[in-house]
Amino acid sequence: MITIIAGTNRPNSNARVISEIYAGLLKERNIDCQILDLVDLPNDFTNTALYDNCGQDEGFNQLVSIIEQSEKAVFIIPEYNNSIPGVLKTFIDGFPYPNVLRNKKTALVGISTGTQGGALAISHFTDILNYLGVHVLAVKPRLMFIHKNLHQGKLTNTLYQDLLNEQIDSLLNF
Amino acid sequence: MITIIAGTNRPNSNARVISEIYAGLLKERNIDCQILDLVDLPNDFTNTALYDNCGQDEGFNQLVSIIEQSEKAVFIIPEYNNSIPGVLKTFIDGFPYPNVLRNKKTALVGISTGTQGGALAISHFTDILNYLGVHVLAVKPRLMFIHKNLHQGKLTNTLYQDLLNEQIDSLLNF
Amino acid sequence: MITIIAGTNRPNSNARVISEIYAGLLKERNIDCQILDLVDLPNDFTNTALYDNCGQDEGFNQLVSIIEQSEKAVFIIPEYNNSIPGVLKTFIDGFPYPNVLRNKKTALVGISTGTQGGALAISHFTDILNYLGVHVLAVKPRLMFIHKNLHQGKLTNTLYQDLLNEQIDSLLNF
Amino acid sequence: MITIIAGTNRPNSNARVISEIYAGLLKERNIDCQILDLVDLPNDFTNTALYDNCGQDEGFNQLVSIIEQSEKAVFIIPEYNNSIPGVLKTFIDGFPYPNVLRNKKTALVGISTGTQGGALAISHFTDILNYLGVHVLAVKPRLMFIHKNLHQGKLTNTLYQDLLNEQIDSLLNF
Repeated sequence: MITIIAGTNRPNSNARVISEIYAGLLKERNIDCQILDLVDLPNDFTNTALYDNCGQDEGFNQLVSIIEQSEKAVFIIPEYNNSIPGVLKTFIDGFPYPNVLRNKKTALVGISTGTQGGALAISHFTDILNYLGVHVLAVKPRLMFIHKNLHQGKLTNTLYQDLLNEQIDSLLNF
Repeated sequence: MITIIAGTNRPNSNARVISEIYAGLLKERNIDCQILDLVDLPNDFTNTALYDNCGQDEGFNQLVSIIEQSEKAVFIIPEYNNSIPGVLKTFIDGFPYPNVLRNKKTALVGISTGTQGGALAISHFTDILNYLGVHVLAVKPRLMFIHKNLHQGKLTNTLYQDLLNEQIDSLLNF
Repeated sequence: MITIIAGTNRPNSNARVISEIYAGLLKERNIDCQILDLVDLPNDFTNTALYDNCGQDEGFNQLVSIIEQSEKAVFIIPEYNNSIPGVLKTFIDGFPYPNVLRNKKTALVGISTGTQGGALAISHFTDILNYLGVHVLAVKPRLMFIHKNLHQGKLTNTLYQDLLNEQIDSLLNF
Repeated sequence: MITIIAGTNRPNSNARVISEIYAGLLKERNIDCQILDLVDLPNDFTNTALYDNCGQDEGFNQLVSIIEQSEKAVFIIPEYNNSIPGVLKTFIDGFPYPNVLRNKKTALVGISTGTQGGALAISHFTDILNYLGVHVLAVKPRLMFIHKNLHQGKLTNTLYQDLLNEQIDSLLNF
């Protein structure tokens, strides 16, 4: 089982659309997968799921257990202010110890409406995951100008579709 | 006016204690300062202050206006999972455009209970601030094993006190 | 005096061309400047100017003294393998202690033939300079697809020229 | 075959000493390994092995072919000025295309005489290797105060020896 994480709590995000597309590419290969959209985080999780409250918020725990059950994870990471969404990092900060991602293999996809495609975001997130003992696939596509390359839930840029398929090839052998 | 930001919403954090110490050092020099502790973020701000709700949460807006009124800012940044606290990044992600920190001069202090003193945290935060047009002082003390160097709200390590004073010297001329 | 450093030893580099353009923009404002092109590094400087040989290579020392005499520095940084040129870092590694850049103010320009414009290169170089006590201007233009935007020593992309002029405005007030 | 790269051209470096220790740990497990010490780089390789001269320097090519023949690589990386040695990056910059490390699995060890243990150095090098399609093991020991923890070619700090052995366990399963 591979979990695809839409890495923002923005409703109806492009990260969610890319997650759906990614899931479609995996299903074409008969790979089991599920989507975890951070829009489903409890509204007050920064108050109920961190620090001394770690493990106390049932809604938060359910999202963590989805990752726990999966062998591999794919993070679809929108670039916010030259890094990852704060909400994605806060989600990680709420994980119980030992970390549920530990020793899992992961793949990162950066997306942005600007020119960078999340270059720094995926670098920062690699630092975070590696520190937690999580392996990160070297192949990390950056999908820049994402809003110009999506139409009605489909990627209109065949290069981007090729990049995702190459990453999947690599992830399945990682 | 200099604002010191305790960069986590953890109650009674070491970041808050260091913020108080920092304020004391500024006051010894007769510099006006105030503390903004992210523990005062609204409980559900990830739901009420981001994206389409940007600018809609009065409690959040009040924290932003504290920064807006100050000329310089000092961020006390605890290291969480080899980066900055997710909550600090989420606070930044909720800023209105144009960013209230733009063109201000800032100083960063990294703190950790481990060996790094926030080395990666302050690197990541520099990437974020520079992207937003915010200048970051080169001098960035890293206070490692912070819990062993604090006692009853005082720094017991004179090196750490010297490092903070050197940063203040540099910040006042920045 | 501002020194502009063409940050590679590649002969006839685009970094050199951008350095010339940058010098032209400064001269339009009657600002004194000079170019230091790393193509002028001694051929064997990795053997004669580092570690126990620090300070022993006259040709190397002359390049260092050019920086020493200037108040501010601008680094034109081509992206090599998702970071700065090794030769630029080796140049820095050969600096005597205390570092001649210490407390100076610097500006960075990233250039690349690919899509990133040196995003990671300028992040890494900021880490290096800040560690050495060197202030880095927040405004860091990234000039991507540089080979398509240069013709006979001129920038054909007016956006890029505007970005350089905005950086100069900011550097002069830094 | 695993190649261990002593990541500096400094003669008699601590990186070489750690490389020998690492080789000893691999041999205890009957794993074939060899050491590549960057002290063996040709003196003028920045002039003879880069850019239009790529592939032209026989001495340089021999070092590259050592890596080419190995399945996995371990980089022992001293921290120089808050990043990797310039010479290590320059070595990578001279690699022919397609990169000989591509798709190989690698492990990184950071060493420093200061407090960081190469935290930023290994982050920067991960950015570089991942960009080149090289997988990096999440487990990256940082050996700080290395000069106080070595005596006559042996690690006197058993924690450091444990960290290297844990990395080897993980590398063999990577």
